Amino acid sequence: MKTRDRILQTSLQLFNDYGEPRITTNHIADEMDISPGNLYYHFRNKDEIISLLFQQFERQMNAALQAPERRVPNMEDMWLYLHLVFENIWEYRFFYRDLDNILSRNKKLRTHFRRILERKVNTAAAICKGLVEAGVMHATPEEIAALAQNIAVIATYWLNFQSTRASAARSNDSDSNNLALGVYQVLSLVAPFLIDEARELLRQLSREYLT
Amino acid sequence: MKTRDRILQTSLQLFNDYGEPRITTNHIADEMDISPGNLYYHFRNKDEIISLLFQQFERQMNAALQAPERRVPNMEDMWLYLHLVFENIWEYRFFYRDLDNILSRNKKLRTHFRRILERKVNTAAAICKGLVEAGVMHATPEEIAALAQNIAVIATYWLNFQSTRASAARSNDSDSNNLALGVYQVLSLVAPFLIDEARELLRQLSREYLT
Repeated sequence: MKTRDRILQTSLQLFNDYGEPRITTNHIADEMDISPGNLYYHFRNKDEIISLLFQQFERQMNAALQAPERRVPNMEDMWLYLHLVFENIWEYRFFYRDLDNILSRNKKLRTHFRRILERKVNTAAAICKGLVEAGVMHATPEEIAALAQNIAVIATYWLNFQSTRASAARSNDSDSNNLALGVYQVLSLVAPFLIDEARELLRQLSREYLT
Repeated sequence: MKTRDRILQTSLQLFNDYGEPRITTNHIADEMDISPGNLYYHFRNKDEIISLLFQQFERQMNAALQAPERRVPNMEDMWLYLHLVFENIWEYRFFYRDLDNILSRNKKLRTHFRRILERKVNTAAAICKGLVEAGVMHATPEEIAALAQNIAVIATYWLNFQSTRASAARSNDSDSNNLALGVYQVLSLVAPFLIDEARELLRQLSREYLT
């Protein structure tokens, strides 16, 4: 792997494990056993590393937020789709943990992150509309508008909520289960608007995926 | 007003306006036109100010999270009740904006904040159970458990979500409307489980409160 890519990967891991505010470029160089000068040859400063990581995150998120287009998604599609979104958030969770702090330092990041949030809301609304048209869901346009925003809030902040609720001792304990729980929480928002068969399918899926 | 109380009030305003990480004790003393020495006579450091502010917040939040006990709450009670919760969060919004950062520096705060989140979940569940017993709501215990957590997430992060979505230019623009919108978003989580009359009442209330 190239040094540049290793710097990005090491930074991501350190930011995720310790929080971005507590990690300096010296920590990153130390962890990699390279000189600070070598690191500065590739990146001018920490913010440049963060910007690059954000670009990676944004690319993956945009790919994930492509709503399945060809046919109406069923509950299992939606479960897997949401899981992908949560996995992306988990992979770059340091952004979400210090969101306001990071975004306030970088206007460009702020604009891009705002776009991701809009996209989350719009994709959620588009999927719901599709489900209504397919007769799987009953909801008014007003209800879909409120629902789509709630979906975006839960998808954005669920992992933060869980990590704040967990005691420090077991904060890294049940990560993958937290992702599945997040998917379940989002789908439970949608469930009351679904026809009976779809609700039953959600019940089965949650028994399967939640251990 | 006593100097000590003025320090707390000034700190709260500066933290809310500029973010806690960007404000030092010198900024606070400057803003009040007192010497740093005078400030240090009252508080050893910034974290002690934050702890005191958190105690105020916790007291108000605990008072707000007392579920109405005597009778089953109707939709208007719930609207006003939630509004109180959102107002408290708004008053101390700097905590929520840099939550992870602030809580990671202070273990005691972390424990207390976790308790507030648990209380939000429990109060939401208790109210829902009350509504089910009164025949106003139809939901299984499983549905109530998922719903109560979603209510707590929306109530905790709605203002963050809105401020991140808003462009910097109009971030302080529509504050009070954001509170009412937050209430509406939470009630829209509950609505699909309510009997028709209660849903209709929610529709009326949102027309009344959302301008």
